[in-house]
Amino acid sequence: MNQVITHPPGSLELISGDFKGKDILSLDQFSAADLYRVFALAREMKELVLASQPSQLLAGQLVALLFYEPSSRTFGSFAAAVKRLGGQTLDIQNPEVVSSVWKGESFEDTISVFGAYTQAIVLRHPLPGAAQRAAEVANVPVINAGDGNNEHPTQTLLDLFTIYEQFGRLDHLKGLLAGDPLNSRTLHSLIRGLALFEGNTVYLLSPEALRLTRDDLLALRSRGIEIVEIHSEREIPTDCHFWYWTRIQKERLSSLDEYQQLAAASFQVTPALLAERANREMILMDPLPRVGTIDPAVDSDERAVYLRSQIRNGLYTRMALLALILGKA
Amino acid sequence: MNQVITHPPGSLELISGDFKGKDILSLDQFSAADLYRVFALAREMKELVLASQPSQLLAGQLVALLFYEPSSRTFGSFAAAVKRLGGQTLDIQNPEVVSSVWKGESFEDTISVFGAYTQAIVLRHPLPGAAQRAAEVANVPVINAGDGNNEHPTQTLLDLFTIYEQFGRLDHLKGLLAGDPLNSRTLHSLIRGLALFEGNTVYLLSPEALRLTRDDLLALRSRGIEIVEIHSEREIPTDCHFWYWTRIQKERLSSLDEYQQLAAASFQVTPALLAERANREMILMDPLPRVGTIDPAVDSDERAVYLRSQIRNGLYTRMALLALILGKA
Amino acid sequence: MNQVITHPPGSLELISGDFKGKDILSLDQFSAADLYRVFALAREMKELVLASQPSQLLAGQLVALLFYEPSSRTFGSFAAAVKRLGGQTLDIQNPEVVSSVWKGESFEDTISVFGAYTQAIVLRHPLPGAAQRAAEVANVPVINAGDGNNEHPTQTLLDLFTIYEQFGRLDHLKGLLAGDPLNSRTLHSLIRGLALFEGNTVYLLSPEALRLTRDDLLALRSRGIEIVEIHSEREIPTDCHFWYWTRIQKERLSSLDEYQQLAAASFQVTPALLAERANREMILMDPLPRVGTIDPAVDSDERAVYLRSQIRNGLYTRMALLALILGKA
Repeated sequence: MNQVITHPPGSLELISGDFKGKDILSLDQFSAADLYRVFALAREMKELVLASQPSQLLAGQLVALLFYEPSSRTFGSFAAAVKRLGGQTLDIQNPEVVSSVWKGESFEDTISVFGAYTQAIVLRHPLPGAAQRAAEVANVPVINAGDGNNEHPTQTLLDLFTIYEQFGRLDHLKGLLAGDPLNSRTLHSLIRGLALFEGNTVYLLSPEALRLTRDDLLALRSRGIEIVEIHSEREIPTDCHFWYWTRIQKERLSSLDEYQQLAAASFQVTPALLAERANREMILMDPLPRVGTIDPAVDSDERAVYLRSQIRNGLYTRMALLALILGKA
Repeated sequence: MNQVITHPPGSLELISGDFKGKDILSLDQFSAADLYRVFALAREMKELVLASQPSQLLAGQLVALLFYEPSSRTFGSFAAAVKRLGGQTLDIQNPEVVSSVWKGESFEDTISVFGAYTQAIVLRHPLPGAAQRAAEVANVPVINAGDGNNEHPTQTLLDLFTIYEQFGRLDHLKGLLAGDPLNSRTLHSLIRGLALFEGNTVYLLSPEALRLTRDDLLALRSRGIEIVEIHSEREIPTDCHFWYWTRIQKERLSSLDEYQQLAAASFQVTPALLAERANREMILMDPLPRVGTIDPAVDSDERAVYLRSQIRNGLYTRMALLALILGKA
Repeated sequence: MNQVITHPPGSLELISGDFKGKDILSLDQFSAADLYRVFALAREMKELVLASQPSQLLAGQLVALLFYEPSSRTFGSFAAAVKRLGGQTLDIQNPEVVSSVWKGESFEDTISVFGAYTQAIVLRHPLPGAAQRAAEVANVPVINAGDGNNEHPTQTLLDLFTIYEQFGRLDHLKGLLAGDPLNSRTLHSLIRGLALFEGNTVYLLSPEALRLTRDDLLALRSRGIEIVEIHSEREIPTDCHFWYWTRIQKERLSSLDEYQQLAAASFQVTPALLAERANREMILMDPLPRVGTIDPAVDSDERAVYLRSQIRNGLYTRMALLALILGKA
């Protein structure tokens, strides 16, 4: 099974500089210029938040947060993004519970209904393709906040913005991506994002059993990014600009046994590893939740951005994206 | 068992042109003039929403949405109505879970508490009469958002408004009401609403087992509306102004078997039926969720308003009603 | 087991007149002057609410309501407090459900994340000490909205404010505290609050099995308040300024049998008891929920403030506290 998403030609509407009213379903809708547009605005949002300035940019805007599976972090980040800009949210958690038990309303009807009440829908759904289906039905923009193992484009926006903020560019960078290259959606998506820029190289560190599939490796390389697979901490180049650690995707495995075996074979960030293989300017990232990825003893290291700027950048990039989609930028 | 609600004289406070501070428990509180007042304001709300104008009409108003059973559509519609007017909501889902397990607070105390925090309470409850009881206890207006099989007055407001918007009047109309005349609360309530106006006729289409009880039929006819029961699609008059389709109320039946039998005998709207028995000006309505009522192939027909204006009219009429009750119209 | 909280010296940051940015973890952070500061502002909040004036004092402020256990009353009161002042809330109920099933994020990481999105965190948690732990991790103020059987400081603020509003002072008062002196967190906390002022006496009425432990009795007396234990309604002094009734803390008992025995032996407020032992100026309080504490026949007595001013005072005091903590007073 090929894990890397490849969209059939024409199935995704490119942004091409014009965000207003667009659905945001996949990272593949963005060009390098589109990303820089989001990041420029995210910087303004950051200044606004840091200055504690109340904003009314989204006053009168109502955004549905339609979460078919729980995700308190993503939910909180989108809710905060809307509210920090003076907008309001319509929070619907587990709408299927409502309708499925007795009433059996279709997903499409639910989307139509909430599209009629609001100016945009942020959708989280366990099934791959749910966001695309919602976008076909809704008469307002749909933002994919994660549809199963398919896409979670705003996660990658914040990851790229975090790297961009640190180094002032997104090209000619070296990154270490560790954890679960086989199954991690955010890791795949980050590689695709980096492939939009020139001269990037990523090193994939994982146990043998969690390497990318051959097809995925080739598909990603064909996008123009250099990918090097490594299998020991000793192989980590010391001049990496960032480390990006992902947890083992337990929910994709067939048994707890398998998980425990893989977890035992996996790599973890410790103060010792940082001291040995990381330089002073690099940053250490994790999309969270971190489970068996980073030793909490590392948290106080100023290169550890996962609980600090990486989280806050999720707020800033989502504020920027919402403002652009709603035509208020 | 008589399904049609008949309130003992004096048990309901009539609106009589004065909405401010009133509880909204039943459609029977409205006169024809009261309905027209709501509809005139709903039209203004529609213009406001379509113009994307941020409104501050309910600024500083806090409305409790107290839902003792889930209903994402009704919840979303009320929440959107408050927020589109610049108000805020206090969302409490399943408050009984909180208190019942360990603490055992009474329904009346919970109502008193939320009445003390807010300016109005929108209540959804599985038990008939819950809204009336809440209104007796609360020192703020209570709006009934459905109390079991008793009443759901704002559903009927939006249904009537949808017909009114299409034909510019609510008298001398012919309607087809199909599905479950025996048990459908919204269908009973719509008949009572239409009975407030002169010269209306409704045709009830259902399998034999789902006909109105004799008592209900007589009670409704006594309100001054003509009711004709039909049992075949061939009997549908082609000059109906609207079709209103309701699902079989599965939750009122004793077994899944019974439901499946009735479902098999029930009538469904298809493109073919529309082509054969509907005229060009009619509208096709459904209170949703539609389960076995309308073939999705019909959705693209412009007469199908259930996912479009009927839903949005729920927003406009609730905005209007809230503004009136809170004295901000 | 000693139920009364005694914090090791230096473990709590005193308010000492400066609320801005402080965590609110325990009543023991407050001096008498700090309490009067809150109450003076709470009075202004009361006037604001009674005048139905929309306030923008907390405009642009986002407060996380992070509830690891349900509590609709406390949740509603904090949500209303934020929103009545023009602020917004980020509502997260049961965040552990999200992370624990599959993802296993730590409590500390969750707190860091929500601290990054918002300007303050209101935390409800079943485990004693959770609020203190959160305060150590978060980079925004944390308000303890109840951490197990440990503390619930805002409950005591509203209780004290209710007494203050009635008598214009908090010293030289006599109070009757009934119900469950052994286990009631709010009762212990109220005694500690009253001990900050001179000349107060409390009478504790309970069945033998629910008396304070010897250690607790001594610890509380050492704070400088007079405590008299009584065991019959006939011993209630008729010159008490307030009665404060608490339910038996069922969740602390080992069996339903034990609860039923204690409940049978417990005291209840009835119209007859009020007529016999209460004077005309006293007030009757209950932190709610009332379960087996106060006969509903008493509700209409104007001295019964538990469903009226006591509830509303929860709103006013939380409005005041939030404004002070957020530096907007």
